[in-house]
Amino acid sequence: MIDPGRFNVGYKVWLEWDGSVFGEGLFKLLQLIQQTGSISAAAREMSMSYRAAWGKIKKAEKRWDVTLVETQVGGEQGGGALLTPQALRLVKNYQDFKQQSDAAITKIFQDIFG
Amino acid sequence: MIDPGRFNVGYKVWLEWDGSVFGEGLFKLLQLIQQTGSISAAAREMSMSYRAAWGKIKKAEKRWDVTLVETQVGGEQGGGALLTPQALRLVKNYQDFKQQSDAAITKIFQDIFG
Repeated sequence: MIDPGRFNVGYKVWLEWDGSVFGEGLFKLLQLIQQTGSISAAAREMSMSYRAAWGKIKKAEKRWDVTLVETQVGGEQGGGALLTPQALRLVKNYQDFKQQSDAAITKIFQDIFG
Repeated sequence: MIDPGRFNVGYKVWLEWDGSVFGEGLFKLLQLIQQTGSISAAAREMSMSYRAAWGKIKKAEKRWDVTLVETQVGGEQGGGALLTPQALRLVKNYQDFKQQSDAAITKIFQDIFG
């Protein structure tokens, strides 16, 4: 006997832009840079090398012809990284998109299978 | 300059049950059996062998301890296959879930990035 109560829902959402995916990886990386102000701290948090994180950002910037992260050398805090306004908006929009999708899919699932 | 109008949304939804995925493959197979009344016609439509289609159904039935497809041997139409009421409801629910999720995600995406 099929018991709908035993079902769980799984889903994945992402954005595509000119055939390139803006998904969890780049999103989390940018979000962590925003939170930590540091590419190396963000990379460490994601168990990536600094080089890999930097490469991921540069690849996206080149592909989309946009600056996502600005780095500062030296200064009182010994340098750091900041998201550009465009990257901040992108992270915010992606986060909203994810959260609202999550809520909608969960509700639809529960209405039908709950 | 990031132009949100150039974004597209991508997504995937599926059901899990006791750790097994009920996704596009089994759903389409059941739907085609419902439409054609024949496992071999459904398999052909999906470019699968009859053996592979039958195996997929039997695996799901065994895992979930449920009968999804009933076969009839002989008779006026030379046999055929029917979905059980449980399988019909599952296909219907899955279809509703997919359609409503699609509409919701598209709307959220357009509200945020449109």
